[in-house]
Amino acid sequence: MTNEEAQAALDLLRKTIDEVDLRILKLFNERARIVEKIGDIKKVAALPIYEPRREDMVFQNVLSGNGGPLSEAAVRRLFERIIDEMRTLQRERMAKEKGQ
Amino acid sequence: MTNEEAQAALDLLRKTIDEVDLRILKLFNERARIVEKIGDIKKVAALPIYEPRREDMVFQNVLSGNGGPLSEAAVRRLFERIIDEMRTLQRERMAKEKGQ
Repeated sequence: MTNEEAQAALDLLRKTIDEVDLRILKLFNERARIVEKIGDIKKVAALPIYEPRREDMVFQNVLSGNGGPLSEAAVRRLFERIIDEMRTLQRERMAKEKGQ
Repeated sequence: MTNEEAQAALDLLRKTIDEVDLRILKLFNERARIVEKIGDIKKVAALPIYEPRREDMVFQNVLSGNGGPLSEAAVRRLFERIIDEMRTLQRERMAKEKGQ
């Protein structure tokens, strides 16, 4: 493979990554909107916001569906970050509502 | 909304989250496979594995495509985790190849 051929192949793969990333981003925001809806229902029904058992189920769902190449530990860390960011979003939203 | 109605609505939304999560997981692994291909090309062409400028472009791509509700800071943290896990996967793969 010449250097030029390698560069052309890399450019193409990176374009694909950028497309995949935008699809991931879209799903992150879709997930965030669902979490917001859940927060609204919990507020109206006076249910607890934090439910550790539900988080276990989230991990179980993705770990049982993982075919790799990402390891189980990597998938767990990735979804820990996702859950954490959703919690931050909920907190910011509740703080804003209280401030109004 | 009765407690039962709230619970039914939550169950439905959680089912949707589980589906979204499996789609996210699929894209994570798709991204990982592309990163593996990039690693292979870099190895053959003797190009540097780590390219900070490319990482800036990854962030630029997702930040310019973010419509929320997730904040810019949240999107950055999420993709930092993704990039980090891809790097870990590459490292593990290279260590395995050296060990063979």
